[in-house]
Amino acid sequence: MPGPIQSLERAAAILRLLAGGERRLGLSDVASSLGLAKGTAHGILRTLQQEGFVEQDPVSGKYQLGAELLRLGNSFLDVHELRARALVWTDDLARSSGESAYLGVLHQQGVLIVHHVFRPDDSRQVLEVGAMQPLHSTALGKVLAAYDPVAHSEAAEGERAALTGRTVTSAADFEALLDLTRARGWAADLEETWEGVASIAAPVYDRRRMPVGAVGISGAVERVCDDDGAIRPRLVAAVRDCARAVSRDLGAGRF
Amino acid sequence: MPGPIQSLERAAAILRLLAGGERRLGLSDVASSLGLAKGTAHGILRTLQQEGFVEQDPVSGKYQLGAELLRLGNSFLDVHELRARALVWTDDLARSSGESAYLGVLHQQGVLIVHHVFRPDDSRQVLEVGAMQPLHSTALGKVLAAYDPVAHSEAAEGERAALTGRTVTSAADFEALLDLTRARGWAADLEETWEGVASIAAPVYDRRRMPVGAVGISGAVERVCDDDGAIRPRLVAAVRDCARAVSRDLGAGRF
Repeated sequence: MPGPIQSLERAAAILRLLAGGERRLGLSDVASSLGLAKGTAHGILRTLQQEGFVEQDPVSGKYQLGAELLRLGNSFLDVHELRARALVWTDDLARSSGESAYLGVLHQQGVLIVHHVFRPDDSRQVLEVGAMQPLHSTALGKVLAAYDPVAHSEAAEGERAALTGRTVTSAADFEALLDLTRARGWAADLEETWEGVASIAAPVYDRRRMPVGAVGISGAVERVCDDDGAIRPRLVAAVRDCARAVSRDLGAGRF
Repeated sequence: MPGPIQSLERAAAILRLLAGGERRLGLSDVASSLGLAKGTAHGILRTLQQEGFVEQDPVSGKYQLGAELLRLGNSFLDVHELRARALVWTDDLARSSGESAYLGVLHQQGVLIVHHVFRPDDSRQVLEVGAMQPLHSTALGKVLAAYDPVAHSEAAEGERAALTGRTVTSAADFEALLDLTRARGWAADLEETWEGVASIAAPVYDRRRMPVGAVGISGAVERVCDDDGAIRPRLVAAVRDCARAVSRDLGAGRF
């Protein structure tokens, strides 16, 4: 069987480079960051530009990601069965909880948000579809790490950065948290990722009873928790109801 | 100067193939659609899969687009200056008009939607960011074709399909429509793309006074037009105000 194609691997590395950090890079920056000869990097960048994956600023000459990626990302969503099944249920979840609802799947070392329903109020909100969240601190991520062995390896072996003073970073404490998640059937994030934000999530299963994603809500800790700082059981129930409904729509048995 | 890299061009062609039509294809379908040897197609697909650009269904063995495209598409949006400048203004446009607001740019042979604000009511709506719209029939497309020479070539030389009974398809009528658009400074779409839907759009300029995109609204023809079937001037004013505001934020002079 032939090995991977080097020019494709290099092109993917360039796109990943442009997706993180600086995001607008000159030819020399791209070449030196990836340890490529300038001529090699230029050939790849020119082909990526011709295909719409990369755009070059006419003034600065710097490269950035191209519009074709947005079009292809949208097409990816169109055939995403889990997302399609979850559309109506996450809409109901946002309405019944009064908070933002999310659907996430494991991607690389994190949670990729594949659907996001805005909090049903008049506030200005930014769509987070396509954004990545950490596995070790978010409710969605903990659910994936607790139920999906691949996600567990990524979270257990990856760096667990202290994003706030409440983030659980030690291996033993993290495993205890996943045990608790499996015992309860849901996970929480009490200001462990963002100050002031609390989240709840539960697992979604497919017809083979494999954990294929997580649904959850996220909102101000003052609303998601009661006066004693405990997660409101009403919201936990809403999230778990939604996860069960999506799983059922995916063909998972009830028992 | 070296030519484009063949394996990259082929990889891009595979992604485009998976983004349209069937969207879930076996190895033989991919190879025969693109005139590639099966071994060649397999090598490219395996590398694309390893990089997350393609996923393979474990049961059917068919290929579809992968999650990495969604992540990269989201990163593209994050550095899109026009979109960033337009966020607040399109939000205001949706509020003041009571209709969905859109921001579109030329991409390949169509309009790529880079921002979409939902109609401010409680109805269930599907986000269209990343979707493509035709240049020749939509209000956004006609604005781009009227003001951007590249868009004009694409629309003039491309196929102008009759999407409804009202779509303008002849070359002479289409050019007359673009003349009208330039004379008025805005374009309309009265059920020329979708039955029952009317749209209005106006051009956005950058600091070099180049037309870089179009903003507009779209909604039920019964709301966008008055009882005589004419576009409501109040909505035209709201769209043009928004386009001017975004242009000003991009550095375009007022005169």
